[in-house]
Amino acid sequence: MVASLDGRRRVIIEGVSPAVGEGKFAAKRVEGDVVRLEADIFGDGHDVISAVAFYRHESAKPVEIRMIPLVNDRWRAEITVDRIGRWYFTFEAWIDHFLTWHRDLRKRVDAKAEDLEVQVRIGLEMIRAAAGHAGKRDRRKLESFIATLEGDDPIDEKIDDIWSEDLQALMWRSSGRELATRYECELPIEVDRRKAAFSTWYEMFPRSAAGKAGEHGTLRGMVANLPRIATMGFDVLYLPPVHPIGDKFRKGRDNRVKAEPDDVGSPWAIGGSAGGHMAVHPQLGTIDDFEALAVAAAQHGIELALDIAFQASPDHPYVAQHPEWFLKRPDGSIQYAENPPKKYQDIYPFYFETEAWQELWNELRDIFLFWAGKGVRIFRVDNPHTKPLPFWQWVIAEVRRDYPDALFLAEAFTRPKIMYWLAKAGFSQSYTYFAWRNTKWELTEYFTEITKPPVSDFFRPNAWPNTPDILTEYLQHGGRGAFETRLILAATLSSNYGIYGPAFERMVHAPREAGSEEYLDSEKYELKTWTDDEDDLTELITIINRIRRENPALQQNETLMFHPTDNDQIVCFSKTSGENVVITIANVDPHNEHSGWIDIDLAAIGLETGQPFQVHDLLRGARYTWQGAQNYVKLNPHVMPVHIFRIRRRVRSEKDFEYYL
Amino acid sequence: MVASLDGRRRVIIEGVSPAVGEGKFAAKRVEGDVVRLEADIFGDGHDVISAVAFYRHESAKPVEIRMIPLVNDRWRAEITVDRIGRWYFTFEAWIDHFLTWHRDLRKRVDAKAEDLEVQVRIGLEMIRAAAGHAGKRDRRKLESFIATLEGDDPIDEKIDDIWSEDLQALMWRSSGRELATRYECELPIEVDRRKAAFSTWYEMFPRSAAGKAGEHGTLRGMVANLPRIATMGFDVLYLPPVHPIGDKFRKGRDNRVKAEPDDVGSPWAIGGSAGGHMAVHPQLGTIDDFEALAVAAAQHGIELALDIAFQASPDHPYVAQHPEWFLKRPDGSIQYAENPPKKYQDIYPFYFETEAWQELWNELRDIFLFWAGKGVRIFRVDNPHTKPLPFWQWVIAEVRRDYPDALFLAEAFTRPKIMYWLAKAGFSQSYTYFAWRNTKWELTEYFTEITKPPVSDFFRPNAWPNTPDILTEYLQHGGRGAFETRLILAATLSSNYGIYGPAFERMVHAPREAGSEEYLDSEKYELKTWTDDEDDLTELITIINRIRRENPALQQNETLMFHPTDNDQIVCFSKTSGENVVITIANVDPHNEHSGWIDIDLAAIGLETGQPFQVHDLLRGARYTWQGAQNYVKLNPHVMPVHIFRIRRRVRSEKDFEYYL
Repeated sequence: MVASLDGRRRVIIEGVSPAVGEGKFAAKRVEGDVVRLEADIFGDGHDVISAVAFYRHESAKPVEIRMIPLVNDRWRAEITVDRIGRWYFTFEAWIDHFLTWHRDLRKRVDAKAEDLEVQVRIGLEMIRAAAGHAGKRDRRKLESFIATLEGDDPIDEKIDDIWSEDLQALMWRSSGRELATRYECELPIEVDRRKAAFSTWYEMFPRSAAGKAGEHGTLRGMVANLPRIATMGFDVLYLPPVHPIGDKFRKGRDNRVKAEPDDVGSPWAIGGSAGGHMAVHPQLGTIDDFEALAVAAAQHGIELALDIAFQASPDHPYVAQHPEWFLKRPDGSIQYAENPPKKYQDIYPFYFETEAWQELWNELRDIFLFWAGKGVRIFRVDNPHTKPLPFWQWVIAEVRRDYPDALFLAEAFTRPKIMYWLAKAGFSQSYTYFAWRNTKWELTEYFTEITKPPVSDFFRPNAWPNTPDILTEYLQHGGRGAFETRLILAATLSSNYGIYGPAFERMVHAPREAGSEEYLDSEKYELKTWTDDEDDLTELITIINRIRRENPALQQNETLMFHPTDNDQIVCFSKTSGENVVITIANVDPHNEHSGWIDIDLAAIGLETGQPFQVHDLLRGARYTWQGAQNYVKLNPHVMPVHIFRIRRRVRSEKDFEYYL
Repeated sequence: MVASLDGRRRVIIEGVSPAVGEGKFAAKRVEGDVVRLEADIFGDGHDVISAVAFYRHESAKPVEIRMIPLVNDRWRAEITVDRIGRWYFTFEAWIDHFLTWHRDLRKRVDAKAEDLEVQVRIGLEMIRAAAGHAGKRDRRKLESFIATLEGDDPIDEKIDDIWSEDLQALMWRSSGRELATRYECELPIEVDRRKAAFSTWYEMFPRSAAGKAGEHGTLRGMVANLPRIATMGFDVLYLPPVHPIGDKFRKGRDNRVKAEPDDVGSPWAIGGSAGGHMAVHPQLGTIDDFEALAVAAAQHGIELALDIAFQASPDHPYVAQHPEWFLKRPDGSIQYAENPPKKYQDIYPFYFETEAWQELWNELRDIFLFWAGKGVRIFRVDNPHTKPLPFWQWVIAEVRRDYPDALFLAEAFTRPKIMYWLAKAGFSQSYTYFAWRNTKWELTEYFTEITKPPVSDFFRPNAWPNTPDILTEYLQHGGRGAFETRLILAATLSSNYGIYGPAFERMVHAPREAGSEEYLDSEKYELKTWTDDEDDLTELITIINRIRRENPALQQNETLMFHPTDNDQIVCFSKTSGENVVITIANVDPHNEHSGWIDIDLAAIGLETGQPFQVHDLLRGARYTWQGAQNYVKLNPHVMPVHIFRIRRRVRSEKDFEYYL
């Protein structure tokens, strides 16, 4: 006999959700979200079960909420997480003898049972016991019921009293729960600010901000770019590393092994005589300039995202100050980064198996804290999958303890289980395989996987059609239509998306060589001069980002749903948020016009079959009246390869109608 | 900083299997099974990982086995569980610096790297460290490698030495694993004897064994039935309760509220003046007779299964001796079983919320132990879902501690999560919804769910076309063809199956009333006289059970696979075991002939496309040569509604061919 076991606890609670790794990791939500707390709850026999959920913000005491049974022994309570930080929940359930008796009494009355007197006495005993537990006011009320049931009234009248809702409420509050089952642990939910779920990123090299050929841009000079970026509708400006760049083994243009004297080097080769991860590259400016840029950006509704790349150039001060943080080879040289036969002599990785790993971890945490102290709350972390995974779980928790509004984007293009683990460990957002998912089948499979539980409970996609490292073949060869399609797919499939500009809006598409995804004359190794171009994608980007702001459906992913089409080159999907319904239909062949029939699951998006509905093309302004699920589309990549339709569910009044104009 | 954390442990282990409820429950296997121990194992960067599984029988020390990487960071080790009892396994994995260096050295050599001297010195340091850990013999061998690598040989020769498999084996045995990650717990596997996975049940009321009208059968009389049951091929004989039956409130024929003086009562109303759960009904015989029947059955290769029904008639000795085990109503009467408005006055349920619940649990355990002491090792447990679920987890573990070969069949026809929980808690086999799954779609959905992980890791179906409580409409109205189809589906879909006879083989099909699943003149309440009938299903049952014995494919469920057919009345499925492949094709419409095309997934059952193969109809003896996936069948329920084909993969020799004749 297990000593601690009370065999009279007859209820089982299992299959709880949301639960990431059975509660080892936190589920992710954002401020204001309604969270469905669910569990499988059941016991033996036919008795009625009652169940509650307990939930609390980390700083508060638990609140109890009654659960509702759904089907198949699944129970639910809905809560609103209205503060950022960590929340916890758990469950309690028990055999509810009063409700069981109450339910059965109805059946007995209906069946004209002979033993109603005895049955009333059984209930009376339960009410007496509850009165013993109850507070003063409730006790008085329960005693009044007891008096009636003990009295001389006819049995019918006593039973009428038992049906009183007051009695049920009193019994709910006062019944004993001595034999309740409590779920074995509390489960965590990490609640972020809303930007974690809905953000629009623009990546730009500040050293290319000068606008004049050959001139090194500055952080102050970036200020002049802010109006353009804000007008396009971006709310996060992501800067590649702004730190001093090493001289030793500096890479030349197009990643050449030897740099020319005027080559600027890669910003990811961090550290030089002017300092390391807590310094600003002298040609970019100063820490003060950085803070000034952050303030100016905020005035445009833009937040800065800083690149955190944990590696050092051979000139990084750490190399001399902390040789124990680097791996020394038998010949005394420091091990540079390599993936044989490839060599990256301009970069020393940290040696995370050093005896001094705790000091190293603390220093790396302090880099986050340093920049958080300068106002940064979004960190884009470079290659987290090449540093020990447990480090990220620790450092993100450390930073968020002081800065609970800090967000982290994982730049890990690696195997799926590692990407998922990083997200579980705490990364707020993650880069995805979007850049290489071009066909209807690929897009459907991939975005269904990453936008539904269990993955969506911990993984928030951030979709990028390009980055300084990724110029896909689709963009290289697809022309303007390819850029348009990929922009709109990113912006409508994923509530978080971004572009690397101005290369994207200028539709830069020449690779370093055939078969390479590197840009020719990559900005990673040289200054660029970007001047205005009226024919670029700026206007389309501006429209798309406005559509995202105006349609709550596009600000989340959980309602994403793909609808069948009869042409494999045409993908169709919807997102809904309350009354707001947006359907995107894209031709994924950048070379040819395609037409076909789409087959919309009307019920799933809240439309009634047989009712006409209006679709409003948010790109072209046109309005069509559709009826039924099947509708015809024709999309020409040389004109505009995508429809974004907002659906009018029904006209209820002129005022309602206005809203959709 | 977490004090206990060593941040240098860089490997993550998760997603382990088999794991039922994350290891809270044991996965189920049988003696001799090969078990695939799997986990997701990964770390940061590109380093090579090594991993081992540790496994042990509960009575033995752990054994280590090296794991193999599959795809997508999934790793596997295969072990054979060759003893019944509880086994445990866990995993350990680490960054393998030697193998990483070894792999990279190959790449460096291929790329004609300049730093091979340094690289050899890096390896040399690892080999020296390993020699420090190694046992005497290994150390000597490692030192010989060290001498060579330190010596004056040309670098090419040194590197040749490094490729030696001896060195790799030595390094595998001797490398340090200081920074290995150990999975957080041991996971349990419950290994049963093979009968848990493959058994053929026959249920019979011993009191109907006399063979003469009006005469009460006896356990001694059952002995005469054994040759018939053994010849049909059954290896488990399940007896409804054999205990004294109460007189008070005894039910009459067809479950009438009032019994006539000569009514025998329901065997499930257990307990009378002659004793309770540890006694034998005087008209059936004695405990000695029971033991004699068990011995005689064993001589026929048949094991007895006893019915365990935890409830008492009002005459049960417990009622007087342990009034605290029953719920008393306010009028002093004992609460009989009811599900309002239905009443079962002949049965008192135990009151599991009694203060004396521990004594009650112990007594119920002792009932199992009593019969185990009389040689019973199979218990068919009546309605376990109406007793506290945690009780079963406890009592099964208690009984198996003394009798690890004891098996338990859960007779719980209830909601799916409760049925699954009982299986997780320890029931070796479970009744299923099979009786009510008649259409192709129902059979496909249901048997796919219960024969694949995660369900198949803990739930072993036992399929019954009929029971004394269940005479389905399909059998009531379908005629002989319905009985044939349901028999063969049960016997081929599920490696464990059973029938309630002789009612089944005699095709008894009259219900108590229209819409009822109760038998008319149910044997639950009266004696039956069964005499031989040459036209019954005995011969078909005999053939089917022989087919099951001769075809290992039918002795397990894990390879069950459904194949498409173009007629919704024709279901087609296969099972394979090594070279043995059996395909069952059934017409599920008992009234009409159906024909259609089946589309066999040849690759999935090990057949080569384009090669002809022979199918041997094990029921009719006919042989056909089929070619390709699509083949035509026509099945007449008035002749024989099912094909059972054994597939000959290829003719390799005359001798091979003989085997299939």
